[in-house]
Amino acid sequence: MRIGVHVFDGAEELDWVGPWEVLAWWAQHGGADRGIEVLSVARHEGVVTCAKGVRVLPDRTWADVGALDVLVYPGGRGTRQQLGDETIHEWLRGLHAAGTLLVSVCTGSLVFADAGLLDGRPATTHWSTLERLGELGDVQVRPEERFVDTGGIVTAAGVSAGIDVALHLVARLGSVDEARDVRRGIQYDPKPPV
Amino acid sequence: MRIGVHVFDGAEELDWVGPWEVLAWWAQHGGADRGIEVLSVARHEGVVTCAKGVRVLPDRTWADVGALDVLVYPGGRGTRQQLGDETIHEWLRGLHAAGTLLVSVCTGSLVFADAGLLDGRPATTHWSTLERLGELGDVQVRPEERFVDTGGIVTAAGVSAGIDVALHLVARLGSVDEARDVRRGIQYDPKPPV
Repeated sequence: MRIGVHVFDGAEELDWVGPWEVLAWWAQHGGADRGIEVLSVARHEGVVTCAKGVRVLPDRTWADVGALDVLVYPGGRGTRQQLGDETIHEWLRGLHAAGTLLVSVCTGSLVFADAGLLDGRPATTHWSTLERLGELGDVQVRPEERFVDTGGIVTAAGVSAGIDVALHLVARLGSVDEARDVRRGIQYDPKPPV
Repeated sequence: MRIGVHVFDGAEELDWVGPWEVLAWWAQHGGADRGIEVLSVARHEGVVTCAKGVRVLPDRTWADVGALDVLVYPGGRGTRQQLGDETIHEWLRGLHAAGTLLVSVCTGSLVFADAGLLDGRPATTHWSTLERLGELGDVQVRPEERFVDTGGIVTAAGVSAGIDVALHLVARLGSVDEARDVRRGIQYDPKPPV
């Protein structure tokens, strides 16, 4: 199984590193015998600068990544420039048509909606962009959900929700037991102190 | 306020990106007028490869980072080679003596203990290394705590606990209201699905 994590300038750090940690933990500790591979993917070669300044070297580009079973699409202010970008729309529609499971975190779902991929589907996003999501197509906006799984497309709420949706993916694509093992591995017993 | 986040080969991704997200969100949205700055710091120049393969370009090195008010020290398998490394011990003891608040996540506390910084203090670590922590000095190991704040040194439990301890830092160094704003910003209402 090949899992791509899209990185781009202005991607919010935790949006993609949360799922990265969960999925790569699964690949390394539980899924190695199944050949699960987690890769970062960027549109072009070169350094990617995330929304809060982290600079990353992507593993692959769109051109050389090959077939993907899953694509994780983070949010962040970088998604704003992506609205209306037909090249991104076509890439996403092509992946969807080829059977790649598309998974957004935070405002990543705005890009999915803008590409027409959420028409007629329930979906969510960061709480601050719920209204915007509804304006980008015939989307059934779900403000109360931590994530929404519609089969071929999954959308999650803001930033930290990427951890929850990634655990859901491990349960769906692997098993509940494997997801529990990852949860225990990353000691995900959250206790927000405020 | 200058906050450094230590990055090194084998650092666990979420260990440091969790606090990074929280602290950089604070710096960008709430603390800009106070001049809060969050920087990644590595021992040497060049690409750092994290435990699960993310490749990062650090902002600064030990040599050029200057004075730090806070240092976040992640865990990950990279900490194993750091045990017994006197150069790291001296760097950490020097920062502590200069008044830098030292904050570990996960097995980062093993390095603090190895440097003698946790002698006579309560502390925690990833659940799998609690015993090891107790063997590295006169440490009062606290298996049940999400994080332990002893004033000049703070230690957190495994991986995802970095998010919780970072929110605690915002509350301590800023205010509870600011920490709540960051929590809302990153939509940290965790709902583990398994």
